[in-house]
Amino acid sequence: MTNRKMRMGMVGGGQGAFIGAVHRMAAGIDGEVELVCGAFSSDPKRSKASGKELYLPAKRCYGSFQEMMDKEAALPEGERMDFVSIVTPNFMHFPVAAAALKAGFHVICDKPMTFNLKEAKELKKMVKKSGKVFALTHNYTGYPLVKSARDMIAKGKLGKIRKVVVEYPQGWLATNLELEDQKQAAWRTDPKRAGISCCMGDIGTHAENLAEFMTGLEIESMCADLTAFGKGRKLDDDGNVLLRFKGGAKGLLHASQISVGEENALNIRVYGEKGGLEWHQQEPNTLWAKWLDEPTQMIRAGGPGLSKNAEAHTRLPAGHPEGYLEAFASIYRNFANTIRKVNAGKKPNAIDLDFPSVDDGIRGLAFIETVVKSSKSKDKWTKFIK
Amino acid sequence: MTNRKMRMGMVGGGQGAFIGAVHRMAAGIDGEVELVCGAFSSDPKRSKASGKELYLPAKRCYGSFQEMMDKEAALPEGERMDFVSIVTPNFMHFPVAAAALKAGFHVICDKPMTFNLKEAKELKKMVKKSGKVFALTHNYTGYPLVKSARDMIAKGKLGKIRKVVVEYPQGWLATNLELEDQKQAAWRTDPKRAGISCCMGDIGTHAENLAEFMTGLEIESMCADLTAFGKGRKLDDDGNVLLRFKGGAKGLLHASQISVGEENALNIRVYGEKGGLEWHQQEPNTLWAKWLDEPTQMIRAGGPGLSKNAEAHTRLPAGHPEGYLEAFASIYRNFANTIRKVNAGKKPNAIDLDFPSVDDGIRGLAFIETVVKSSKSKDKWTKFIK
Amino acid sequence: MTNRKMRMGMVGGGQGAFIGAVHRMAAGIDGEVELVCGAFSSDPKRSKASGKELYLPAKRCYGSFQEMMDKEAALPEGERMDFVSIVTPNFMHFPVAAAALKAGFHVICDKPMTFNLKEAKELKKMVKKSGKVFALTHNYTGYPLVKSARDMIAKGKLGKIRKVVVEYPQGWLATNLELEDQKQAAWRTDPKRAGISCCMGDIGTHAENLAEFMTGLEIESMCADLTAFGKGRKLDDDGNVLLRFKGGAKGLLHASQISVGEENALNIRVYGEKGGLEWHQQEPNTLWAKWLDEPTQMIRAGGPGLSKNAEAHTRLPAGHPEGYLEAFASIYRNFANTIRKVNAGKKPNAIDLDFPSVDDGIRGLAFIETVVKSSKSKDKWTKFIK
Amino acid sequence: MTNRKMRMGMVGGGQGAFIGAVHRMAAGIDGEVELVCGAFSSDPKRSKASGKELYLPAKRCYGSFQEMMDKEAALPEGERMDFVSIVTPNFMHFPVAAAALKAGFHVICDKPMTFNLKEAKELKKMVKKSGKVFALTHNYTGYPLVKSARDMIAKGKLGKIRKVVVEYPQGWLATNLELEDQKQAAWRTDPKRAGISCCMGDIGTHAENLAEFMTGLEIESMCADLTAFGKGRKLDDDGNVLLRFKGGAKGLLHASQISVGEENALNIRVYGEKGGLEWHQQEPNTLWAKWLDEPTQMIRAGGPGLSKNAEAHTRLPAGHPEGYLEAFASIYRNFANTIRKVNAGKKPNAIDLDFPSVDDGIRGLAFIETVVKSSKSKDKWTKFIK
Repeated sequence: MTNRKMRMGMVGGGQGAFIGAVHRMAAGIDGEVELVCGAFSSDPKRSKASGKELYLPAKRCYGSFQEMMDKEAALPEGERMDFVSIVTPNFMHFPVAAAALKAGFHVICDKPMTFNLKEAKELKKMVKKSGKVFALTHNYTGYPLVKSARDMIAKGKLGKIRKVVVEYPQGWLATNLELEDQKQAAWRTDPKRAGISCCMGDIGTHAENLAEFMTGLEIESMCADLTAFGKGRKLDDDGNVLLRFKGGAKGLLHASQISVGEENALNIRVYGEKGGLEWHQQEPNTLWAKWLDEPTQMIRAGGPGLSKNAEAHTRLPAGHPEGYLEAFASIYRNFANTIRKVNAGKKPNAIDLDFPSVDDGIRGLAFIETVVKSSKSKDKWTKFIK
Repeated sequence: MTNRKMRMGMVGGGQGAFIGAVHRMAAGIDGEVELVCGAFSSDPKRSKASGKELYLPAKRCYGSFQEMMDKEAALPEGERMDFVSIVTPNFMHFPVAAAALKAGFHVICDKPMTFNLKEAKELKKMVKKSGKVFALTHNYTGYPLVKSARDMIAKGKLGKIRKVVVEYPQGWLATNLELEDQKQAAWRTDPKRAGISCCMGDIGTHAENLAEFMTGLEIESMCADLTAFGKGRKLDDDGNVLLRFKGGAKGLLHASQISVGEENALNIRVYGEKGGLEWHQQEPNTLWAKWLDEPTQMIRAGGPGLSKNAEAHTRLPAGHPEGYLEAFASIYRNFANTIRKVNAGKKPNAIDLDFPSVDDGIRGLAFIETVVKSSKSKDKWTKFIK
Repeated sequence: MTNRKMRMGMVGGGQGAFIGAVHRMAAGIDGEVELVCGAFSSDPKRSKASGKELYLPAKRCYGSFQEMMDKEAALPEGERMDFVSIVTPNFMHFPVAAAALKAGFHVICDKPMTFNLKEAKELKKMVKKSGKVFALTHNYTGYPLVKSARDMIAKGKLGKIRKVVVEYPQGWLATNLELEDQKQAAWRTDPKRAGISCCMGDIGTHAENLAEFMTGLEIESMCADLTAFGKGRKLDDDGNVLLRFKGGAKGLLHASQISVGEENALNIRVYGEKGGLEWHQQEPNTLWAKWLDEPTQMIRAGGPGLSKNAEAHTRLPAGHPEGYLEAFASIYRNFANTIRKVNAGKKPNAIDLDFPSVDDGIRGLAFIETVVKSSKSKDKWTKFIK
Repeated sequence: MTNRKMRMGMVGGGQGAFIGAVHRMAAGIDGEVELVCGAFSSDPKRSKASGKELYLPAKRCYGSFQEMMDKEAALPEGERMDFVSIVTPNFMHFPVAAAALKAGFHVICDKPMTFNLKEAKELKKMVKKSGKVFALTHNYTGYPLVKSARDMIAKGKLGKIRKVVVEYPQGWLATNLELEDQKQAAWRTDPKRAGISCCMGDIGTHAENLAEFMTGLEIESMCADLTAFGKGRKLDDDGNVLLRFKGGAKGLLHASQISVGEENALNIRVYGEKGGLEWHQQEPNTLWAKWLDEPTQMIRAGGPGLSKNAEAHTRLPAGHPEGYLEAFASIYRNFANTIRKVNAGKKPNAIDLDFPSVDDGIRGLAFIETVVKSSKSKDKWTKFIK
């Protein structure tokens, strides 16, 4: 029986967490997913309390992710979860994903996909071997106008791409919040939990992913200058990077967590021989299209000029803004539809499959390792690590 | 047992409808509501097919709203719906709401609340008598910055209010879409289904509601000039209105469905003796605060300067845009929390109760009747009908 | 000898004045005009002191406008001024213009053209009789994108016009500045110097002029609600007006001097059957063009999509903003070029003649008288006074 | 006699030129300068024809700049020019400036100041020796909000500066305009006339100048990646640069002439420990000020929150936009006032002296040479050449 909501089990996202709630809201929007269980915290009491707030029965609020895998796997097919949503800090992504795949569950995972590139490559092998569906929540690619931009570029409307400017400034770590018991700041600035990078790992990867997703180009080499401005910080909270893409396009990427007053200003500009595109995450329903001899166009979600694919990811008429959660929801919706078809032995279509994959996750980790290596290097150009 | 999701039954919103899907998505975001049944269409087959797409069991997809009331009421308490969501065209709001209240269900209803003012007043009596919770989805009041604006004004930060400019231009009826088998256009331009006004009933009421909600002022009299620009249209598709508020403030309200290229440009500006506020629905996460001798401030959802109430209706950090569905969702969330407390014999708090009520619905219908009367009148000023 | 700069004599605009300096800067930009003399103040000492600051010889700084007319008229042709620029408060416009025309000088005059409609009509007769060139500095019509909008509408690109929304909010009189010895506020709020209206006379006329200039439509009747919010004010500082145009278009005009935080927010939106246009004076180099089934276009000064006439009033490449003074300068340039040709017995072309005329001045005064009459009337509609 | 307009002689700027007209308009706005002579072209006929259009007497339209220096120097003091304005292509700046200084004239010169750094240093010596006033028209520093930003940073309102992002994208050379007989494109892409860089020399220098002017910081080293995207181009038309400033701030600079659809998007963002600033040349009358725990402020030209210095460079009330020409004019006005005082043996004040100097010119040339050197280098960091 596949004509039903896909059942989600969550790992992480208990009381006080941030991104777990985001995943639950995103999963709730389109009515394709229902939360049925969770291991919301490594502290079993906290996990139960968290689940209770989410109206889950106590027996399906597990004390550890492994317990969840085991007990869910033992449930009858009509009851057990279909997939695991991983919303823990970075260092726990890989073990949970590995356990889930091993236990036969599909996986959707927050980014960066793993703690390091080695894990990422291993995970890819595991996904392949398992035959399960794997999605990575590079959520910004879910915005309809990001998809429209990608489709316009793929169709050649801009001509050959020459320049890409992508940036993601934030200001929330301008002061040393991690010393004030701010949970989000604490783990992100801690090499043991976040990995080798703070800013580039957390948001630089979003910029990298957006640039590659939208243009279809691959970064070939880069020159990075990362900085830890916050007193005593071990990891970067700011970084500036020159980019060279395969095929000759040039670019810049910069990200920051110390740019006072900036919120989540993920912005991208792409210029080709015949046209340019500009998109701002904070006003996500507008895409600016620029032309050699025509006035700039304001393409709007729900309005004329969208690609078909973008329309398929739009829920509301133009002028009723969709936001971050809706973009996130599109990943969940497509992931759920893909699982449903896969389970039924059907072939998912291109829209079902339009979500970030394990390969995007590998690119992300490779980006982090390359950018850190480049920043430490005296060489001007560092090749993108494979 | 009240520690559970509130169970929703929907009337209307079957295949091809628009606002029903909006209600379902909004209801799904916060995880406080689950859809358990529906009478999605007056055509039983269509109702069943619609429900199937929503993964509902066939037995809870009813052929008529009355059947739904009867059969649900007969279910055990642990299973039957808690409330009815009414998303039909306007003329069906009252009969469904009346039946739901009579059958002992709470009600959430799209706007305008009823077909005319008489029904609205009758409904108020029924709500009062029933002791049930009633919410009206004047969704724009759900935006956090609308709430912040209201709170700033209530605290006197702008001083005495002098001027209000509110507008809601759209362009989608610039051509006679109703002749092209466009369902949304067809019923809205039809006096039998929409009532005595198209533009003012559909979106002018939103403008009126927003102005009164934000300022806390009541319109006292008005001077309206409504027009049907579309060939052969019987109802207005555009209107301009001078407003006078109790206490001396003046204002303008204009709404339009023939303003080519406009999407849902609900905008409001309020000026007091000491400050001004400006808000645009299409960029809902920004509130502009203007002062006598200080630079204009850009107040942002999730950022500094919000009222507590606004913060309680914000899900994401600043810069991750929330949109139309999230504003809508706040009404559902508060409504659900109120029901849960009422059912448990607890007292809802101010945030629970922060949703539009049957009184707002009456103001809306009175507005429609007054604005149509004023437009036909040769008198300059027409008193707001009570 | 006409191949020379046109020589300007100024009346008003002495030390402490505002608009006189604006006229001088505007006249200086294009190198077509030179200031040669002035009666800058009714106080001869102040007039001389003002002229000295402008590097004028003392003998050409006159103690009264009549002295200026007489003495300049007596100078040899190669030396005497060509035209008079009138930048006094409103009540002095007519007497100075009359004296200048009588003495054989061309005239350029600030708006509103005269103190009342009667004077305006009389002035028209005098201009006609004199054969001299007369320009009115309704400066906002000088912006290239306002001209482009006018040309697009005239060519029918929007189809038949249905709706016009024009507004001019300011906030500078939100407090009673006139009690604090602020010269600009003092005369504008004084019926003896400003006439029967403050807000509508000062800036409402700009809104009226812009709406009629851009659309080519004439206001046929109106319904006005003017208010004096400032304590003890005798003249309006705010006003809201419903408009009906000849041919069936409807509209709104509102203007305000008490809208806290607003600067000079002259904005206009025009909607026809096929398209819409939107322009904001504070970002004057952008014109938004909206279409039934195409994305909105951002037409930019200096960029593609401008009318020829607009190009002829653009000095810089796109992206180098021209502002208020340049728009003002275009009136001076065209006026000077027209005089030069008229003096040489040549025929000015359409671009030379593209400046506001005595007829615009009459419309402006008629607007002021109509809007004040309507505001006092109990009738809904008041015909535009002829 | 110094109470008079300063007399300008222009070199370059004849028919068909662009920047000469800009200088003349800018010089005309404030009434402090009058054009009295020129060597508008190296072709004497063209020079005369150009001067005639500017209403100059034929005898003061010279056939060469040297002729102008000689003949003007021979005129009586009450008649001869006070200063020379140099608006030729880059390679002619130095010889003309040298000749002017030698002949005893003050000099105002377009940027980049000279053809190369060597000339720039030599020019500095000549200026020093001559005792004459020298101004460089880095016009963007003339905007009031750029001055306000500089003053805020100098006062420490942002705390220690950490990051600077400055950019200047244009799109006009996206195609090979230089092959289509477009004069501006032809000389800028020609190494013989433009020097060793096109994009960085023409607009990269503006970005560099703006960043250093606003922050008061000096670039210490950089890492550049310049590209010639246009077919067959010998000079860069795009460039991306990582910056390191003395004192530890980091930054990025990018400039482009191939970013399709961009006009003159000179933008800057500066972040310190306590605040941030953002300014866009295309909307120059707004400065965004960002704070750790307060809403972002919109500081407006003519409005509250400006520095005194900024107010001294503002001509109009808030909301009446000043643009590119007015910013340019402020350099001319200050330069003229400085000359007037120097000539009269008086001391210019800080506002008089607020214009770019020969030292800014040296920084500009050093920037060009460093950025080109860095782009060719395999070293990651290249020290800013002294």
